Amino acid sequence: MEISQPYLLFLGDVHDHLAAKTAQGIVDWRREWCEGQLRLEGCKADCGLPDMGVADARAAGVKTMVVGVVNPGGVLPDHWIATIVEAIEAGMDIATGLHQRLRDVPEIAEAADNAGVKLIDVRHSTQRFATGKGTKRPGKRLLTVGTDCSVGKKYTSLALEKGMRDAGMNADFRATGQTGVFISGRGVSIDAVVADFIAGAAEWLSPANDPDHWDVVEGQGSLFHPSFAGVSLGLLHGAQPDAFVVCHEPTRTKMRNVETPIADIGDVIDMTIAHGRLTNPDITCVGLAINTKALDDDAAKAIISDLGEKYGLPACDPIRTGVAPIVERIKQLG
Amino acid sequence: MEISQPYLLFLGDVHDHLAAKTAQGIVDWRREWCEGQLRLEGCKADCGLPDMGVADARAAGVKTMVVGVVNPGGVLPDHWIATIVEAIEAGMDIATGLHQRLRDVPEIAEAADNAGVKLIDVRHSTQRFATGKGTKRPGKRLLTVGTDCSVGKKYTSLALEKGMRDAGMNADFRATGQTGVFISGRGVSIDAVVADFIAGAAEWLSPANDPDHWDVVEGQGSLFHPSFAGVSLGLLHGAQPDAFVVCHEPTRTKMRNVETPIADIGDVIDMTIAHGRLTNPDITCVGLAINTKALDDDAAKAIISDLGEKYGLPACDPIRTGVAPIVERIKQLG
Repeated sequence: MEISQPYLLFLGDVHDHLAAKTAQGIVDWRREWCEGQLRLEGCKADCGLPDMGVADARAAGVKTMVVGVVNPGGVLPDHWIATIVEAIEAGMDIATGLHQRLRDVPEIAEAADNAGVKLIDVRHSTQRFATGKGTKRPGKRLLTVGTDCSVGKKYTSLALEKGMRDAGMNADFRATGQTGVFISGRGVSIDAVVADFIAGAAEWLSPANDPDHWDVVEGQGSLFHPSFAGVSLGLLHGAQPDAFVVCHEPTRTKMRNVETPIADIGDVIDMTIAHGRLTNPDITCVGLAINTKALDDDAAKAIISDLGEKYGLPACDPIRTGVAPIVERIKQLG
Repeated sequence: MEISQPYLLFLGDVHDHLAAKTAQGIVDWRREWCEGQLRLEGCKADCGLPDMGVADARAAGVKTMVVGVVNPGGVLPDHWIATIVEAIEAGMDIATGLHQRLRDVPEIAEAADNAGVKLIDVRHSTQRFATGKGTKRPGKRLLTVGTDCSVGKKYTSLALEKGMRDAGMNADFRATGQTGVFISGRGVSIDAVVADFIAGAAEWLSPANDPDHWDVVEGQGSLFHPSFAGVSLGLLHGAQPDAFVVCHEPTRTKMRNVETPIADIGDVIDMTIAHGRLTNPDITCVGLAINTKALDDDAAKAIISDLGEKYGLPACDPIRTGVAPIVERIKQLG
């Protein structure tokens, strides 16, 4: 999946800013790709971009209108279709992360065929993959893993990409989820791939590269999550990371949407190494990313310090403290 | 996926018996479901069933014509279509394990719509699954796992179902691959499920049951196979087995289609327990199924005895020696 820049972010008429989380993520990490936002009457979200219509966006050189909002049920409301068709007729590709496929809306499919533009459903991969081969590829790779889903793996990966680039390293974020694909302009929703091809998709996502180049691969799920561990394991084998960072939310007691207790950081480290060795014998843990959003500053600093000491690893909160200690450890790997 | 019995096995005009492996598997394990075989001119396969045409099969009460053959590329040859349409017009469902979908052949789709019969593409699941929940379900479960793909997990599972039933136990084979689905008349090609739903599909496959009922779940891949381990792990979490049997081919040095060395039996036992505990704390290994096809009788007996002693487990070759020692161990579990 490849998405052309620059973007116009379509926010529709969503009722709160949370519904525009995807669009906000794009603005946070790729402000330079965003020419503006398009809001319908009544829209309560605001990503702080210039408001513009389709004609202005086209004049500004926009190549893709990104539907950067979610609405209940993941379907496209009927009253958004006219604007999407207008953007198509102006020559823009359309990209969404909704469950409903753009091509399943007849007006959109017809307009796209007439205009010769791409309809990109990030949630539905049309890419064909090979099965994973397990062969070692040149270039270096880092994977974020977790003690649960939704503990900050995407944010940590993007913060590491930025931190490594700022430190003069050659690093690229590799997206495995919808928002990440919009942010990197390329990637695959790994959880939407057919099961046989999880590892193969991860290999495709992170191809051979220069020996000093780092792919920072966005992790998914957890090896200990009873719903999604298969995805996490296939991604680990396919990404064949040299280094990994464990992401953790210290106030959580149960995993997301299930009754399973949150995994132990030490178990995640051991299991990631045990499996990761299959495709990269040199795999090593380079840090802990602790999501301390639920804690005050003192409590946050205490737990970061405690966990770092307990496991003998650089520990930080990518949002509260930045990822410098982990970047330093990665540099030491050479 | 549910397939109605009895079956007519369509063998087409394949060039050797190996191409009818699926049909032969059905005959081996469910002879009582098979009314006959339908062979076109030049067919070199023979499953030993009465040859019959569509009209005779219909008169015999056949409900489904199973295309039980593979041909290179997995597509349906044009000259098979007329017979398939004839069966549809006689009111039979059609089931295949080919890559090509029956519905993508216009004549077949149209005939099926007119006749109101089902087209069942076992390789393509249309069933919608929930994500796995990890909650313990009543009933007992056994899973076959492996040191590689294609080491005899399906055969072992079917032999265990038979052995357990013969021993008076209440046991049902649960299919996770194409041939298995034809043999059990129900199941899911787990490797064709969308990655997010692997564990959920395994939970659907093996629902809550009587406390003394055993599901014998067909395993897939290996936790140590770099292409398919994600499937194996999701299946393990979803199946939440009380007992597992390790299937192994002792003459193999590398895993199928990759350069990875074959996994160690002890590592497979340890890793299966480490992960299986997440959804069933009582998981235990009840035996080794050694595929000794490549060995002579003395060598086979020696390696079965050696491996059984080394790991302190009942060991056998389901084909050469039967599975009685493993069934005995399962009975002891209560």
